[in-house]
Parts: sequence; C-alpha cells; structure tokens
Amino acid sequence: MPQYQAPLNDFEFILHDWLKLTDHYQAIGAQDAADQSLVNAILNEAAKFSETLLSPINYSGDQQSSQLNNGLVTTPSGFKDAYQQYCDAGWSSLACNPEFGGQGLPFSLSAAVAEMVAGANASWSMFPGLTHGAISALENHANESLQAQYLPQLISGQWSGTMCLTEAHCGSDLGLLKTRATPSKDGEYVINGSKIFISAGEHDLAENIIHFVLARVDGAPEGTAGISLFLVPKMLTVISGKSVQSDNQVECSSIEHKMGIKASPTCVLNFDNSRGYLIGELNQGLSCMFTMMNKARLATGIQGYAIAELAKQASLTYASERLQMRAISGAKMPQKPADPIIVHADIKRMLFTQKAIVEGCRGLAMYVATLVDKIELSQQPSSDIESRLGLLTPICKAFMSETGFEACNLAIQIYGGHGYIQESEIEQLVRDVRITSIYEGTNGIQALDLLGRKVLKDKFHSVNQWLTEIKIATENSDEKFVNYAHQLLDYCSQWQTINQNLAQKVSQNPDEISAAAFDYLMFCGYVSVAHIFLQQANSLQHSSQSESFKQDKLQLLNFYFLRLLPRATYHQTVINAGAESLNCEAFQLK
Amino acid sequence: MPQYQAPLNDFEFILHDWLKLTDHYQAIGAQDAADQSLVNAILNEAAKFSETLLSPINYSGDQQSSQLNNGLVTTPSGFKDAYQQYCDAGWSSLACNPEFGGQGLPFSLSAAVAEMVAGANASWSMFPGLTHGAISALENHANESLQAQYLPQLISGQWSGTMCLTEAHCGSDLGLLKTRATPSKDGEYVINGSKIFISAGEHDLAENIIHFVLARVDGAPEGTAGISLFLVPKMLTVISGKSVQSDNQVECSSIEHKMGIKASPTCVLNFDNSRGYLIGELNQGLSCMFTMMNKARLATGIQGYAIAELAKQASLTYASERLQMRAISGAKMPQKPADPIIVHADIKRMLFTQKAIVEGCRGLAMYVATLVDKIELSQQPSSDIESRLGLLTPICKAFMSETGFEACNLAIQIYGGHGYIQESEIEQLVRDVRITSIYEGTNGIQALDLLGRKVLKDKFHSVNQWLTEIKIATENSDEKFVNYAHQLLDYCSQWQTINQNLAQKVSQNPDEISAAAFDYLMFCGYVSVAHIFLQQANSLQHSSQSESFKQDKLQLLNFYFLRLLPRATYHQTVINAGAESLNCEAFQLK
Repeated sequence: MPQYQAPLNDFEFILHDWLKLTDHYQAIGAQDAADQSLVNAILNEAAKFSETLLSPINYSGDQQSSQLNNGLVTTPSGFKDAYQQYCDAGWSSLACNPEFGGQGLPFSLSAAVAEMVAGANASWSMFPGLTHGAISALENHANESLQAQYLPQLISGQWSGTMCLTEAHCGSDLGLLKTRATPSKDGEYVINGSKIFISAGEHDLAENIIHFVLARVDGAPEGTAGISLFLVPKMLTVISGKSVQSDNQVECSSIEHKMGIKASPTCVLNFDNSRGYLIGELNQGLSCMFTMMNKARLATGIQGYAIAELAKQASLTYASERLQMRAISGAKMPQKPADPIIVHADIKRMLFTQKAIVEGCRGLAMYVATLVDKIELSQQPSSDIESRLGLLTPICKAFMSETGFEACNLAIQIYGGHGYIQESEIEQLVRDVRITSIYEGTNGIQALDLLGRKVLKDKFHSVNQWLTEIKIATENSDEKFVNYAHQLLDYCSQWQTINQNLAQKVSQNPDEISAAAFDYLMFCGYVSVAHIFLQQANSLQHSSQSESFKQDKLQLLNFYFLRLLPRATYHQTVINAGAESLNCEAFQLK
Repeated sequence: MPQYQAPLNDFEFILHDWLKLTDHYQAIGAQDAADQSLVNAILNEAAKFSETLLSPINYSGDQQSSQLNNGLVTTPSGFKDAYQQYCDAGWSSLACNPEFGGQGLPFSLSAAVAEMVAGANASWSMFPGLTHGAISALENHANESLQAQYLPQLISGQWSGTMCLTEAHCGSDLGLLKTRATPSKDGEYVINGSKIFISAGEHDLAENIIHFVLARVDGAPEGTAGISLFLVPKMLTVISGKSVQSDNQVECSSIEHKMGIKASPTCVLNFDNSRGYLIGELNQGLSCMFTMMNKARLATGIQGYAIAELAKQASLTYASERLQMRAISGAKMPQKPADPIIVHADIKRMLFTQKAIVEGCRGLAMYVATLVDKIELSQQPSSDIESRLGLLTPICKAFMSETGFEACNLAIQIYGGHGYIQESEIEQLVRDVRITSIYEGTNGIQALDLLGRKVLKDKFHSVNQWLTEIKIATENSDEKFVNYAHQLLDYCSQWQTINQNLAQKVSQNPDEISAAAFDYLMFCGYVSVAHIFLQQANSLQHSSQSESFKQDKLQLLNFYFLRLLPRATYHQTVINAGAESLNCEAFQLK
C-alpha cells in the first residue's frame, strides 16, 4: 500500500541549492519568506500534513467516492476533517493577500505545498485548488465591495470556490455557451442555465460555495466576444448591503461517475434565477478567466507529476521487496528464494523513467513558479517575464500531465498483475492522473496555445529569449558536463530550425499549426527539462545534500540524456511530416 | 455510446487479397476451409454475433461486474445467454479437432473470430479464450482416456477450462510455486494449495470447469524442474471408470476487484484434497504449458488491438459529430454553429495513430495466425515455421498490447472530458486493455523471451530469416513504393547492426539483455508492421475493395512511415544506451 512521503530532499536541493529561493525572495521584496529555515519549516509541516492526514484517505476516498443525495454531496470519510485542519493551520491562505487575511508568502512556496497535497491525495487537492482560481478572479477583476464581501472567507477556506465554464455542448469552444444573465432591477443579474463538469460544485467541506460563472448577457454579441463573468454564491449572505442567509437556487442535479478522482464531486449545476454579480467588464469574461489560467494550468501540470511521485515511490518499494527470479548476471541475494525484481535492468529502466519524469517536471515547475513570484510580487513586473511564463505554462501543463501519466502507468507494469488489482492502490493513480491531460484545457489546446499564440503570433520573441537563456547557461556549464552541453546545444539549434520551417509552412497553410502543435510541445518539454537537469547538475558542487544524493542526480542526468531526451528527435521528425501526412479518406466530412 | 462494428472490409482485404487465405488453406490441406464464400460467411456470422449479442452487454458487464456469493460466481446479465448461443452456433468448436466434435477449421479463421469477440466484449472473451488453452493442453499432452473424457465437452463449450499457474508469491517466477500434488492409492493425485489470478476460475456459464493446475509432486526437484501439470475438475464426473457427480473441493474464496475486465471473474482458488490427473510427464509441467503459450500469447496481443478497434470506431464517430471551434484554415461547415472536431489536424493525428495501430497489428496478427495453421495442419511442419512463430509471438503479444493501450488512451483524449466519464463507455476500454500488457507473461517477460531466447540463444538464425524475407519482399515492391522500400531496407540494416552490437555487448555483460530487451522488441514491432503495410500496399492492385478503401490504405502507409515508424529510431538509440545508463544510487539493494 503506497504511503506518500514528501520528497523533502529534492525540494530543498531545488529550492535552495539550485533556485536560491531566499535570494530570489529578497530580490522581489518578499522579505518575510527570505529565511531558509522558515521555508524549510513550512515544507516540513506541509509534508507532515500530507503524509499523515491526506495520504491515508486517498484510497478510501476512491472506494467511497463522493455521493449525491437530494442535491447535497457527501465527501468520503476524513475529507471534511482534513479540510478543517488545512484551514485551521493556515494552508489555504499561504500565498494570499494580507489585506484580506492572507499570509502574503510567494506563490512558489505554495506551489511546493500544492505538489505535496496533490501527491498525497489528488481528489482532495481539488477542493482548495479550485478556490485559488476564485480568489484570483476576485482580486484581479472584482470591485472593492465584492472583494471585501468574499475574499476573506475564500482565503480562510471557510467558503470554497468553483469555475463554471463548460456546458454540455461546449468545452474547448466557450463561444458556444448558452447560460444567460439578465439584468435585474437593482443593477445585478439573474442567471439561468446549466453547467457541467464543475469540480467541487457542491460538497460538505465549506459553509458556502462561491461560483464563478461564464454567461451571456441578453443582447450580447455572438461567440466569445459576448461572454461575461459572474459571481454566483450558493448561499446569499448580503443583498443590497443587508445581511441575509438565503438559498440562491443553484441546484446540483447530478454528479459524474468518472474514471478517477472519484472523491472529487464533478457536478452538473443548474442556475434557476440565481442572483449573480458581474466581475470585471461586461463581455470581458473570457479575458478575466485568462488572467487566472497560467496558475491553474501550472497547478494541473504539478498534479500530473505529483501523482507520479507517489507512483514512483510505491514502485521503488515494491521492486525492492518483490522476490521473483534471479538477475541474469547471477544471484544477487542467494540467501533468499529469489532476487528482488529491482535487480533486473528492465525494471530499473521503468523506475528510472519515473524518476526522471518526476524530478525533471518538479525542477521545471518550481522554476516556472518563481516567474509567477516575480510577476505577483515585484514592484515592476517585466513583460519579458510575463511572456516567459506564458510560453512555459502550456508546456508545463501538457508535458507534465502526459509524462506523469506515463510514470503512473509504468507503476502498474512494475507491480505486474498485482498492479491491476484495486487493493494495491496503484491502478487508482493511473485513473486519477488521466484527467490532468484533459481539464484546464486539453493538451491539444495547450499545444495550439503554445505554437499558435506563444510562438508564432509572438513572432518567436519569447521562445528565442528562452533559447538564448538555455544556450548561455549551457555554454557556461561545468567542464565535466561538456558532452551533455554539446548535445543540448544541438537540440537548441534543432529547435530554431523547427521554428523557421514552421513559420514558412504555416504561412502557406494554417493547418500546419495543428498538425505540428502536439509534437512541438513535447519537443519543447524534453529540451527544456534537459536544460533544467544540466543546470541542476551545475549547482551540485555547492549543494549541502549527501554524496549519494549528488551521485544520484548525476546518474539521472546521464540517464535522461541517453534514454529520454532522444524522444525530442522523434518529435522533430513528426513535426517535419507536416499536415499533408494527416489526410485520410476515412476522415472526410460527410 | 460505442457500438462495435466488425471491420469486415479490412478482414476481407487482409485474408483474401493480401494473405490469399484460400490458396494457403489448400496448400496445407485444409480443403474444407478453402472456399472464399465459406470464409466470408463465417466472418459475417461472427460479426453479427459480436455486434448484436456481445457489444450490447460490454458496458453493462463492466458496471455490474461478476459477483461472488457463497463460493459461486454470478456473471453479469446476458453473459450466460450469449455463451449458450455461442456454443449452440458452434463457435467454440470452430478450429477444434473433428475427432472430438470440432469443426477442424484453421486457427487463422478462429483468430479473426477471436478478434471480433474481444473487440465487442473483452471481458466476455475471457471465458471461451481460457478454454482454448485447456483444449491445447489436453490434445498435446494427455492420455487417450483423459482426452475422451474431457475434450468433447470442452470443445462443445458445455464445460470450460482454466489455467492455474500464479500463486501469491510467484507470477513470472513459477519455480517458486508451492501447490502440492500427492500420489493417491489409485494412481492419481491429491492436490492441495492456493492459486490466485485465475481467470474464469468460477462462473455460471458452463456446467463444469476443468482446471489445469501447476503443482509440485512430493519429493520433486526444486525450481522449475519439479513442476507438473494436473487436470483438476470442479465436479468429478468419472472416478475409476464409473460415472459420478461429486464436488471436487475446489473453492473460490474470493474474486479480485480489478481496474478493468470486471465482468471476467479473477479468482482465488483453494484446492483442498482435490482429485487431480497428471497431464504429460512428471516434472514436465512447464514445457507442457509452453506448447500452448504461442497461441495464448498471440490471442492476448489480438485482444490488445481488438479493444483498440472499438476505441478507434468510437473516436471517429465522436470526432465527426462533436461540434467545437472552427478549422484554423476557415469554417468547413459554416451552416453549423461550429465545425466537427475532425477538421483539426491534431484530432486527425490521434485518429490516424489509432487506425495505424489497429490495422498494422491486425495484419501482423493474421499473418502470424497463418504460421500456426501451417504448424497445426501441415503434414510436415517445418522447424523454420516453428521458429518464425516463436520469434514473432512475443512481438505480437507485447507490441500489440502496448500500442493497443496507446490507441485506447487516445480515445479518451479525443472525447475530452466526456471520455473521462463512465457513461461514455470509453474509459472502460483503457481499463480493460491495460491487462493485456501484463497477463500471459508481462511485456518485460516477452521482451526477454524475444531477445534472450528467440534471438541470442537462437544465434540470430530465425531473426535473420525474417529479415531476409522482409528484404526480398521489399526489394520486389512495386516501383511506386520505392521511397518506402528504401526506408524499410535502411531499418533492416539498422536491425542487423543492432543485433551485432548486442551480441558483442551481451558477451561481456549478460545484464545488457534486460537493459535492451523492451526497446528491442518495440523496434522489431515497428519495423515488422512497416513490412506488413508495404506488402499490403503491393497487393492493393489486385484487390476488389473500393477505390476509397485503397486510397485509405495508401495514406495509411504514408502516415505510418512518416509518423510512427520513426519511433523505431528512438528505440534504437535507447538500445545503444546500454546497461550502464541504468545504474542508480537509489536502486541499490539494501
């Protein structure tokens, strides 16, 4: 039975030895966080919380699932108690605005905490996770009155939040949405419509649920230009300045039976003349949503490799204990009836793949989280940092969910038949992680966003800056990594060649974007992680981690360059294949 | 809701136009089958059976699962009725020995039928599937008396069979097994022990269940050299020549809660002084099992891509109907609120990948099935054919289950959020197909079998023959395929280079086998399927299929060479990385 253990050594190495987090916090003016021992104390407490409260209710949560009865959702045993303790300990308010009761710590710290929470219990992590999006929407777009009314309780966790975008006939294409907002006499709105796939849309953890709903005001333009964002509370607590406590007619009519994250209720919500408050400008709903997208998408990528961390830990334990056959090169534990399966190179191949995925993604995610810090906390956030974040976010979301799924799936293979049995608690991880490639924008949408908007529409500005940074850092690598550096510089050249070719192709046929996008994203992911690993290797010499930890990282670097990075070359080949290779009689429109 | 449709056009093209099945049947003396209209009639009837009886109970079977009560297993609604109709229509006896009531048709025909059955309902296909292994064991290794007693009812389907190998502490490593066989006074054996993961170990479809049990006779040598095979019926019907009807004390104490194939009961069976009959020679149990391995492993590979066929069909339908966004190159269906998602190149990429996997695997599987025909029906089966079958079997099992899983998983992605919901009946396919990479020997075991035994121990005899055949066929390809032919010949040279390098490396470190095995198998799979596609393309000119079918196959050839075959190059790179790249501090034995 996998018991989650927070990877504290790797966090400390990444955050302190490599990213030099406290210097970074100092530089952006986050003085409170610029104390290594405080950072470590927070990491340690988050580890304890995840290991002792969340991990033990992960499997039982899957078995029990959330249940709907008469419009009310009951979460599995232990979920409510863990949520209460999470709020009491101040985890919900960690990186939130002190003006409304938050602790004002940097996002990167909360990203590390979020990884632990998601790794220990992905379903449970959905409840606080969704509230963060609601907080961002309020902070960035709501008027002062709404902020004062809603932010303190959302930040404390007393209330939770949702994002209500999808409808039955529209997911990726929000321009088609039909939920209506009608102006009411007192200047607010009346919301009518039905939303699906609403995570944590109804549950018993918080006293109130604040829905952020995309809807179309009567007479608004067609398509995405006519969508506005509304705050719609489950319970109304204030109307026209007076305290009330009244039901706002938001009904949860059903919850989905899903492949995984079964403890997280995915709701159909019906808004029946529900009172709504406009957030931001009229018809600017989509752009209000987009401001919170980067963090939400990064968080989804983090979920992807976080679940893989648990799969990796369980696999390593199982492979070290399961006795089966002898090593081909002769018995390694002759005193036992067979050797543990970890002696087989093929098992090591799978374990190492998991390890490289998890540690590579973690490095990339934490680096990207420091970009968010810079934007959120610097007095003058630079537009280069913003576009760097915009560039790397879809890569994080899609690459980490794709490879996180691969790592979880390898765990089943390492467990063999036992991994296919629910009681081993392994197949759950594959079912849980599978959603991360879909929600917050499918990976196909991420790839289009990357290649179409962040690369081509940006005229290569941001991607070239990223490539330049990789090249300079690589050229300055320690002498002993010269072989890796040469390889990485080669990949950078290939990346530039790909960009040039694509620019030309796309100018002739815009479908070339979609034909290349997914493989382009994966190429960028593999090469970016190679850069992360090489830079981490450079920072080992000043690390206070153990010698075996350092040895391990060097072996990981070598493994990655020899066995995973070459996938980038495959993706490059596919990018070159172009749109024409996707024509097929069978796919003609009828 | 995916409704299975048997791919009859592709079967007809593969079996008649490409493999020239009736000539092949004639050549091996299977005159009865050498009638194209009879073959087509059988395919059509199998299609009808699969589409109308098995497909409709696939999802309900997953939802209901098989249930255990007081030692008895109840299968989901409709399973028993479908089984009765399967037996009544003679499907169970199709390729069985006429001496015992079988119809004596070639295996290849039953392989095509097996694909349809597994594609329509993978769980249900386990019941007749396991019986085939039991029949093989009896036919090849039992004495005449046992054959006469058990074969007719197994062939008619009145009784079903199982394979009882795994115990809690041994799966891949059967040498560790502990189930005991004690000689009884009348010359038979008394079996005691416990087996796990027994598919169809207990159920309500057949009147009796005949277990084939690996056990260790008292005093037998340790390890695999001391394992014997026993027939242990659930109900004894004859003792010392007298008819009886008595319970043989085989108890099903629990069934597993699995990730998928939930309608197929996976049983823990306890043998408590159960009467057993020795099959084959004492201590030759493993080699008795191995004679039936090739067919069982091929059948597992077939399951892998058969389930993917259903995923592919459902994906194509969904992508043609789901309206979402416009094509990047401009609206394709301006009269509708959005274009169907199939207009996007990224969706086509996924659909084409599914199509290439399914049709490539089908071609390879059907070719390999004709090798089985030659061995089973020829008067003088050649040892070259036997070793060709031995070489290609692990490739089929592992390559088809790996890529079949990929194709099913893409279906979830094409469906987006809806694919993650159980009611879409898509995520079930991923859960069902996942077992095919594990049972009948994990894909890691298949890879070791391929590289260790079938290539290296065989001193490249068989693999070089296969390569020669590919090369000759490729060189004789139609002029218009010259580009593909050149590429394929290149891959063949690479394959030979890989072989030479591995021979040298392994002589210095036997762990190099395990370090390379999985990627070696995948390399072989991709290149072998390329050969299949090219040869199929060559046979198009004499095909009676429609022009659009032919066009489709040519586009598939092009897609495969440009976008999937390059994966072989990636696997080659990984093979070259060698065992040293798998060393890791974290994987040291403690």
